[in-house]
Amino acid sequence: MSDARPIGVFDSGVGGLTVVRALSEKLPHENIVYFGDTARVPYGPKSPQVVREYALDDTNILLNHDVKLIVVACNTVSAVALDVVQKQARVPVVGVIEPGALAAVKRSKSKRIGIIGTVGTIKSNAYGTALKRLDADVEHFSHPCPLFVPLAEEGWMDHRATELIAKEYLFPLTQHKIDTLILGCTHYPILKDVISRVTHQTLQLIDSGEATAEVVAQLLDSEGIRNLSTMNARLQFFVSDVPHKFAEIGERFLGRTLGRIQRVSFASSHD
Amino acid sequence: MSDARPIGVFDSGVGGLTVVRALSEKLPHENIVYFGDTARVPYGPKSPQVVREYALDDTNILLNHDVKLIVVACNTVSAVALDVVQKQARVPVVGVIEPGALAAVKRSKSKRIGIIGTVGTIKSNAYGTALKRLDADVEHFSHPCPLFVPLAEEGWMDHRATELIAKEYLFPLTQHKIDTLILGCTHYPILKDVISRVTHQTLQLIDSGEATAEVVAQLLDSEGIRNLSTMNARLQFFVSDVPHKFAEIGERFLGRTLGRIQRVSFASSHD
Repeated sequence: MSDARPIGVFDSGVGGLTVVRALSEKLPHENIVYFGDTARVPYGPKSPQVVREYALDDTNILLNHDVKLIVVACNTVSAVALDVVQKQARVPVVGVIEPGALAAVKRSKSKRIGIIGTVGTIKSNAYGTALKRLDADVEHFSHPCPLFVPLAEEGWMDHRATELIAKEYLFPLTQHKIDTLILGCTHYPILKDVISRVTHQTLQLIDSGEATAEVVAQLLDSEGIRNLSTMNARLQFFVSDVPHKFAEIGERFLGRTLGRIQRVSFASSHD
Repeated sequence: MSDARPIGVFDSGVGGLTVVRALSEKLPHENIVYFGDTARVPYGPKSPQVVREYALDDTNILLNHDVKLIVVACNTVSAVALDVVQKQARVPVVGVIEPGALAAVKRSKSKRIGIIGTVGTIKSNAYGTALKRLDADVEHFSHPCPLFVPLAEEGWMDHRATELIAKEYLFPLTQHKIDTLILGCTHYPILKDVISRVTHQTLQLIDSGEATAEVVAQLLDSEGIRNLSTMNARLQFFVSDVPHKFAEIGERFLGRTLGRIQRVSFASSHD
């Protein structure tokens, strides 16, 4: 049995395109509908209450496209609003926290794991909770890195300032002698090189997007909803705004040009 | 005649508190109602279309508080949506672009003026247009500084990374031998010291918020709507979200504690 319905992916903005990239490398025949809430990005500093309201809007946009599965690419939403998405959706929902935590536990030898993310993700302690559930012996240490998102969007991957900022953010974690670091925000894989450099290549970096693509592949099989077609997959991109420099930034995150980008409005507000 | 109705001030988020600070220093007896759209901040990278929709929402929130005058503290809104606010409001409206441009023209000797701001503000060329209208002989040079907003919010005013970033942003402007620099974003006054340092104290820095407070004072008199009471003024703060670290960041921008912060919802959406 083959299911050609698209996988739905949503994020607060452009960052989730790193997850789309991982998905389409792992699952090249799956159609994907992406929604980025670029009119209200970023979610990272915002309160859980507002993030939950926005997550519901985002879910409804994807459901309108008859998706067979929803990937919550946004770490902040996965951390504080996965239940909102699961309650609303009539299809399987995969967040990025559990897959990221699982990959980290599998790869860490010292069982000392670091987590970086937005203020919202770190405050929620969602990764810490997931890690402890997977292995009670794991010790975890976390640090929010709010400047990493604008640095990745500005494209300053090799700038001396980025290196200084990365050092400042990561120093407290390396002091805890971690051997594995979860990149708990979709923007951070863009900064992999500088993160490796300032930590002297001593850390295994866990890209939650890649880990999530693995979990999605397994789920498609277990649910019997894989697309068995060998046709080229169709990728569609929807956003709530087409902000300045969107195509340029999107290309950096997706690893290729996006093609047509369609702007959509939310069907209802929460008042 | 005395008019005790409050002055309404709105901004995309917390940055407009630097304008409130300037207003309440200049006009200590005026009541002020502030609204920050913290649920959708920042506006700077977003498209003019979305900024105009949001500006209308923000205006309506202030009008519900019976304000006698509206100050558009947000440079991005002042640059691309002042007409939207003016059309909606039944009261005088003051943006920050005209006052900032006027102050720069008055103070520049060489008539070579630099402008920094968000991508939206710089792309609009609103400051350039205003400068040329005030003095056709002025030459202006501009540069967007998207990392300044998150650096100011992170509180890294004295960090070496901030200095490097400021150097990179400001170098092309100093090459043009400007003598005056317009700080075209409410966040930038927080970074005045580092901006002065990396430009070797050679530039006159124009804080549009301070310039706007001057214009507001004149307008209150010319319209006969000054509050003649000598009672302590009442400052009220409304936001669309109470994000992480809001009180801490707000205090840095306002120069004192904010007290009670009330969350409000928008009355309608734009669908």
